Amino acid sequence: MSASRRQFLTHLIAGGAAAGSLSMPVWPANSLSEQLPESMQKAGGEFTNYGQPSAHEQAIIRWIAANPDMPGNGVSWTPLHELQGTITPNGLHFERHHNGVPQIDPTEHQLLIHGLVERPLTFSIDALKRYPMQSRICFIECGGNSNASWRSVPIQSPAGYTHGLASNAEWTGIPLKILLEEVGLKPDAKWAIAEAADGASLNISLPVDKLLDDTLLALYQNGERLRPENGYPLRLILPGWEGITHVKWLRQLHFVETPAMTRDETAAYTDLMPDGRARQFSFEMQAKSIITSPSVGMTLPDNPGVYQVTGLAWSGRGKISKVEVSADGGDSWVEAELQQPVLSKAFSRFSLPWQWQGQYAVLQSRATDETGYVQPDRETLLAERGKHGFYHFNAIISWEVSEDGNISHVYV
Amino acid sequence: MSASRRQFLTHLIAGGAAAGSLSMPVWPANSLSEQLPESMQKAGGEFTNYGQPSAHEQAIIRWIAANPDMPGNGVSWTPLHELQGTITPNGLHFERHHNGVPQIDPTEHQLLIHGLVERPLTFSIDALKRYPMQSRICFIECGGNSNASWRSVPIQSPAGYTHGLASNAEWTGIPLKILLEEVGLKPDAKWAIAEAADGASLNISLPVDKLLDDTLLALYQNGERLRPENGYPLRLILPGWEGITHVKWLRQLHFVETPAMTRDETAAYTDLMPDGRARQFSFEMQAKSIITSPSVGMTLPDNPGVYQVTGLAWSGRGKISKVEVSADGGDSWVEAELQQPVLSKAFSRFSLPWQWQGQYAVLQSRATDETGYVQPDRETLLAERGKHGFYHFNAIISWEVSEDGNISHVYV
Repeated sequence: MSASRRQFLTHLIAGGAAAGSLSMPVWPANSLSEQLPESMQKAGGEFTNYGQPSAHEQAIIRWIAANPDMPGNGVSWTPLHELQGTITPNGLHFERHHNGVPQIDPTEHQLLIHGLVERPLTFSIDALKRYPMQSRICFIECGGNSNASWRSVPIQSPAGYTHGLASNAEWTGIPLKILLEEVGLKPDAKWAIAEAADGASLNISLPVDKLLDDTLLALYQNGERLRPENGYPLRLILPGWEGITHVKWLRQLHFVETPAMTRDETAAYTDLMPDGRARQFSFEMQAKSIITSPSVGMTLPDNPGVYQVTGLAWSGRGKISKVEVSADGGDSWVEAELQQPVLSKAFSRFSLPWQWQGQYAVLQSRATDETGYVQPDRETLLAERGKHGFYHFNAIISWEVSEDGNISHVYV
Repeated sequence: MSASRRQFLTHLIAGGAAAGSLSMPVWPANSLSEQLPESMQKAGGEFTNYGQPSAHEQAIIRWIAANPDMPGNGVSWTPLHELQGTITPNGLHFERHHNGVPQIDPTEHQLLIHGLVERPLTFSIDALKRYPMQSRICFIECGGNSNASWRSVPIQSPAGYTHGLASNAEWTGIPLKILLEEVGLKPDAKWAIAEAADGASLNISLPVDKLLDDTLLALYQNGERLRPENGYPLRLILPGWEGITHVKWLRQLHFVETPAMTRDETAAYTDLMPDGRARQFSFEMQAKSIITSPSVGMTLPDNPGVYQVTGLAWSGRGKISKVEVSADGGDSWVEAELQQPVLSKAFSRFSLPWQWQGQYAVLQSRATDETGYVQPDRETLLAERGKHGFYHFNAIISWEVSEDGNISHVYV
């Protein structure tokens, strides 16, 4: 154990020993047998063809923020502060739609690949199901995730409802490279304009190098067919890249020489820099982490002792190599445990036991990815990007714990 | 490439080249722009707090087989033949209940750990949420999965509806070892009787070595809280062991010296061997695999060419090291590709392109795990176990493909 780590254990203590300090009520050994709970005194509910969450968990939802005049334009957040592990269940995967969720009959849907190709081809969903498929667990994060953090006053919404335009699932589909080999890209095919079959006719230009690398044409999400709000019957998966590139309800890839300068790569999803110029095509999501529990809006019970600090970290560049946690606003750091296996371009869960005895604290997490990139603090990010950003916020988030256990979001 | 593999490629061909032989209709490059699909001509549906599958996928369900006189006693199968990847979505995780699904209020539920312990303790769900948690992707397979395969005539149900009492999820919970250190097991505590809070008062004896090894006290399933039919608010996860040991709705662990010889470890979940004696406590699930597509009941389209043979393999002993596929009823084998990462005691997806030109074929898969154990053929399994088995069937499954593309289940 390093000296800094040992020193830090006055605040954060590690390992099984932590549990021993939790005091629990002791019941007489036979107490449970004296009165059977109601659930044991009758038959339970019947089998179901498709299961749903418990009636006691109905508050665990995606929180919706949509345009009142255009209810299909908005977002819904994954409640990251209520979840554990790394997989986002399909019912809670975040949504970002520009004009609602189209209902598409898969027997009528076609994908056209054309433009600067030798053999323009269309593919039915049935035809696509015959191709080789691969599965990959990876995150999708909206480029606009965490955008409330650009504001000058820290927002007090629950963690998931600020940072939960990010979810993580096992996607299964066809390596797009296989289909591109089949159509035969011409040498000057440098970009593809991907178009969705939704009411927004959403489209965006994607560079061919990524499409020939690890891009999947996904048909399945956590084992079952895609959900409508996640692109049924067909979506792109560009591991590590911002959400807008994972085009849902995909109907065509049009190969061209230069990007089309569509609305969502000019007016939106670009970064206004301090010099007044806009950064474009910043597709790759940088390393980021967030403590999901304890987090803003929670109150630590009037029961000092050991708490688990846990959260999620991810990087569009590859694997997370390290997550450090601070309980003193960044003056000292200790390395958290990463749940294994750590997968590239996927959520990694970190955790660390924390001894809280009623002291004031500021909890933070800081992710480092395998390229050596370190998640910046807010001051550093703002120095680089200016104060008028909207997209691609990935700075360290701070949770202030008051002496009475209330947790709020602060800038430090 | 080995000689045997090269020889086999007359039937099974590998790699991207395979796709090139699929003939697809070629549309004029501008065909999609001439008539926009209906979904692009209007706004789509609104955001939802909790998502559901597409209206076009309502046939993808758990198939239920329950006792007409006791509708909470039975099973429902995961439709493995309709799924891809390795994660089972929570709505489709298989069910096995003995007296229905109890509805349990988590604020009233308690776990008691008592018997041969130094300090009997009870734990509320809120208290448990403060303990360190781990996540693990692993399969659960009912000991009675595939039991129709013991019959003398091969059953023609879809693959999932015979072999789908097996599912795979990311479970998150507390390493049970931590709680057992807290209560302090006495030296003669060799077994725990685990009891469920359901209408069957289901109980079973579990050896302490496994409980101190990799057993989790799970609260979360694929990120969200357990589903009611999967043990809400609390279940045991014993990675690699048969389903009955993953006690749902867990209310007590009673530590004792010897197993209690409960109904479900004597009258059920035991193996009647050829010598008339019953094998008991055969908890560890042996290596197994099944081709999920193409599989029984499917018909290959009248369109010879390349098909993907894909399926699932798993072992309760550790990682799958190899899956081989045969198209000639076991005369020759070729190694399939395993989707990475291969996790211990979890589903692994295997796949292989197969050239079908209308010939008669018998498709089989054969799993080998990291201990060197090889999935037996049916004849070998019956020679060892007799013809009156009911549980723990793990032999090779054979799908016969007729010259007109119909697929049926056969014994070879």
